Amino acid sequence: MVKKIGIIGLGTVGQATLKTLAKYRRLIERRTSLDIRVQKVCDIKQEKKKVVARTSIPFTTDPYEVINDPNIDIIVELIGGIHPAYQYVTSSLKKGKDVVTANKALLAQEGKAIFKLAHKLKCNVGVEASVCGAMPLIKSISEGLVSCEVKRLYGILNGTTNHILYQMYKEKIDFQDALKQAQERGIAETSPQLDIQGTDALHKLCILSYLCFGVWPKIKDVYVEGITRINPLDIQYAEELSYRIKLLAIAKKEKYHLSLRVHPTLIREEHPLAEVVSAFNGVWLDTYPAGRFLMYGEGAGGIPTSSSIISDIVNVSLRKNSFKIKEEKKTRLESINRLKTRYYIRFMALDKPGVLARVSKILASLNISIASVTQKERSKGNIVPIVMLTHDAIELNLRKALSRIDRLDLIKPPSQLIRIEDM
Amino acid sequence: MVKKIGIIGLGTVGQATLKTLAKYRRLIERRTSLDIRVQKVCDIKQEKKKVVARTSIPFTTDPYEVINDPNIDIIVELIGGIHPAYQYVTSSLKKGKDVVTANKALLAQEGKAIFKLAHKLKCNVGVEASVCGAMPLIKSISEGLVSCEVKRLYGILNGTTNHILYQMYKEKIDFQDALKQAQERGIAETSPQLDIQGTDALHKLCILSYLCFGVWPKIKDVYVEGITRINPLDIQYAEELSYRIKLLAIAKKEKYHLSLRVHPTLIREEHPLAEVVSAFNGVWLDTYPAGRFLMYGEGAGGIPTSSSIISDIVNVSLRKNSFKIKEEKKTRLESINRLKTRYYIRFMALDKPGVLARVSKILASLNISIASVTQKERSKGNIVPIVMLTHDAIELNLRKALSRIDRLDLIKPPSQLIRIEDM
Repeated sequence: MVKKIGIIGLGTVGQATLKTLAKYRRLIERRTSLDIRVQKVCDIKQEKKKVVARTSIPFTTDPYEVINDPNIDIIVELIGGIHPAYQYVTSSLKKGKDVVTANKALLAQEGKAIFKLAHKLKCNVGVEASVCGAMPLIKSISEGLVSCEVKRLYGILNGTTNHILYQMYKEKIDFQDALKQAQERGIAETSPQLDIQGTDALHKLCILSYLCFGVWPKIKDVYVEGITRINPLDIQYAEELSYRIKLLAIAKKEKYHLSLRVHPTLIREEHPLAEVVSAFNGVWLDTYPAGRFLMYGEGAGGIPTSSSIISDIVNVSLRKNSFKIKEEKKTRLESINRLKTRYYIRFMALDKPGVLARVSKILASLNISIASVTQKERSKGNIVPIVMLTHDAIELNLRKALSRIDRLDLIKPPSQLIRIEDM
Repeated sequence: MVKKIGIIGLGTVGQATLKTLAKYRRLIERRTSLDIRVQKVCDIKQEKKKVVARTSIPFTTDPYEVINDPNIDIIVELIGGIHPAYQYVTSSLKKGKDVVTANKALLAQEGKAIFKLAHKLKCNVGVEASVCGAMPLIKSISEGLVSCEVKRLYGILNGTTNHILYQMYKEKIDFQDALKQAQERGIAETSPQLDIQGTDALHKLCILSYLCFGVWPKIKDVYVEGITRINPLDIQYAEELSYRIKLLAIAKKEKYHLSLRVHPTLIREEHPLAEVVSAFNGVWLDTYPAGRFLMYGEGAGGIPTSSSIISDIVNVSLRKNSFKIKEEKKTRLESINRLKTRYYIRFMALDKPGVLARVSKILASLNISIASVTQKERSKGNIVPIVMLTHDAIELNLRKALSRIDRLDLIKPPSQLIRIEDM
C-alpha cells in the first residue's frame, strides 16, 4: 500500500526524517507492506530547497501547497511553535488528512482542540515524537498499557537540563558554567529559557497527563520550577545523603485528585532514574496491573527522533493509533500548596549560638518535623550551611516557614528548598 | 465492537487475565471501543471450574469446545509447554481465529511454523506476554522501532535468576542458599532447571531474534550457560572491580553475522542493566536510528502479565499487530567459539612460586593478553584465588587455555571463566 506524505519544516528532525526514510524505505515496506513516499516538502526558507536538491521531491515555501495537495495522505508538521503550526495542523485535518507532529508546545496548549477536531473528522494524530524523542513511550502507554491505570509517573523529560545537572554533579561546576559548556557543545540552545525554566518538560507533562489520565491541564495551572536556582552545594550535600538531584516531571493520581508538577527533585541514588545520565530521557511509571516500569533512551536529536516520526506515519497509516482517550472531567488538579512530601532545605546561617533553635522553633510551629540536620563546615566568612531533611510536610507550611526563617537576622537569604520523592 | 475470547488454561496468568478483564472491561472499552467478552474458559482440571463459579462464564475441560466455538474470535492459550499447546494454537488458526499466547517454549521451538501458518491464513498471533511479562517490549520493538535496525540487544529476561544473583550479591550467600530462599518465597519453582540453566532466557532470546532480525534460530544452535557455577567469590571480586554479574541474553548483528548467546556476564556497575534488581527484567537495545534504549519492568507474575495479554487481545482485534517480519535467510549464526570479547578468569592456585608464570605462559601462547591480575588473600589452606581480566580474546583460545591450566599440578580445577560485556 502506498502512503504519500508531505513534510512541513525542514529543520533537524525534518531533514533526518527524509534521510531515514530514504535509507529504510524498503525495510519499512518489508515489515509493514507500506510504501511511504515523500510527495512534497516545505520550508519557509527558500535556501532549504538544497535539502532535497539531489532527489526528485518537489519543494515549496508555501505550506498550503502541501496541505491542499489532494495526493497527500499524511501531513508531518515539524515547524514547532504554536502559530502558524496550529493553523497548519487543523487545516490538514479539515482536508481529511492524518497528522504527525513533534510539536509539544502546540500540543500542550492546543492538544484538546486538536484531538477533538481529529476525533470529529475521524482522522489520526500521531504525537510519539513530541515526548522523549526516540523512545516509544506514547505507544507503550496508550497501547501497551491499554488495560492499565497509571498511579504515578516520574519523568526526566528534558535532556538539556539533565545534562546540565549531570555535569554539575560530575564536574563539580556551577549552573552558569554547565550551561555555557552545554551551549558550546550544542546541547543547550543559545536561548535556553524553555529548557532551564522547566517549560519544555511542562509541555511534555501536559501531553502525558492526557495520555495517562485523560486530563488536559491548563498550562498555567501546573506548577513548574526550573533548575537555575540549583547550587553545586546542594548537589554535593544531596550526594552525601545518597541522593541525586534531577529535574522531574511528576504526575500522581488518587481517585479524582491529580497532582502535576515539574521541579528539581531529590531521588535516591539507587533508583534507576538516578542513572539516567547526560542528555538521556527516562520515565518511570507505577501502574496497575502492569506494575512498575521504566523506559530510558534518546530524548532528542534529529536522527533518533526520526524513528518516532516514522513509527507514527506507519501507525496512522494502518489506523493503529488508539487516541480514543476519553476526557476525564471529574478529575481536579491539586494545588502545589497542598502537596505533602519530604523536603531538603538549606539555610545559610551566621555561625552564632541559637540559630538552630530559632529555625527549629519556626519549623515546629508549622508542623514541620525534622528527620535529619547536618551543619556543614564553614564556607565563606562566618556563614555556615545548615542542611535539613524533613519528614512529610505540607508545601504551604514549608513556604511560610522559609519566608519567616529568611527574615531572621542570623540567616542569609534566600534559603533553598528542594522536594524529595521516595519512589 | 464486541470481541469474544476463549481462554485455555486457568493457571496464574489465566486467572489474572479474567480478574483484570472483569475490573477494567469498561475502561478498555472507553479507550478502544472494544467490548471484550469472555465467551468460554477451559482447564483440564475440573476443579478449576471454581475460578468462574461466581460468573456466568461457561467452563469446560475440553479445549476443542473453545477452539471450535464459532462465536469465539480470539483464543488465548495459557497452558504452557509444547504439546498439546502447539495443536491448540494451530487448530485455532485453522478455524480462522486470532491467537494470543504467553508460551515462550512453544514459540522458541515452533514459532516459525506458527507465524507461517498465521500469515497464510491471515490471522494474527499476539506474543507480548511471552517475553518480559508486563513490559510492552514486543510492541516497542516491532511497532515503535519499525524503522530501526537493532545492532545489539542485552536482556535480563529471567526474573528468577536475576533475583538469585541479586540475593547472592546483597546477602553474600552462595547459589544453593539463594535458590532455596527463592523457592521458599515462590520466586523460584520447585523444579528450577528451566530458569537456572538459562533455558527460559534462551527461549525468550529466540523470540527476540525473530522480532529484531527475522531469524528463528534452532534452539540447540544457541549457546546457553546457566548460573549454577557462579560462586559468591566471583560476585565479590567482580564488585571490587566495579562490575556486577548478570545472566544476560545477548544478540549482536553485524552484516549477516548474528551472535546469540545466554550466559552470566560481567557488566559495569554504572550501566543501567546493573540496576535491574530483584526479579525485575530489563532489556537494553542499541539501534539505528533510535539510538540506545532501555526498558525495565515486571517480568512475571499473573497480574502484571495480564496487562500484556489484554494489550495483545486489543492489538489482534484492531488488526494492530505488525508481525509481518520477513525471514532473513542470508544471516548466519556465529559459533560461540569465534566470540571475541573480554573475560574474567579465576584460578584457585597453590600458594607456591612460579604459578603465575606458568599460567601467564599458557595464556600468552594462545594470544590472550592480560589486562589486570589480582592475587586474593588465602581462602582455604594454601589455596589462593587469582583473578584476571583479559583484553579482547577469542573464546576458543580461552577454553583451550583453561583446559591446559586446569591440568597444571599447581591449580585446583575447575577454573572459572565469565564473559565481560562493555556496553
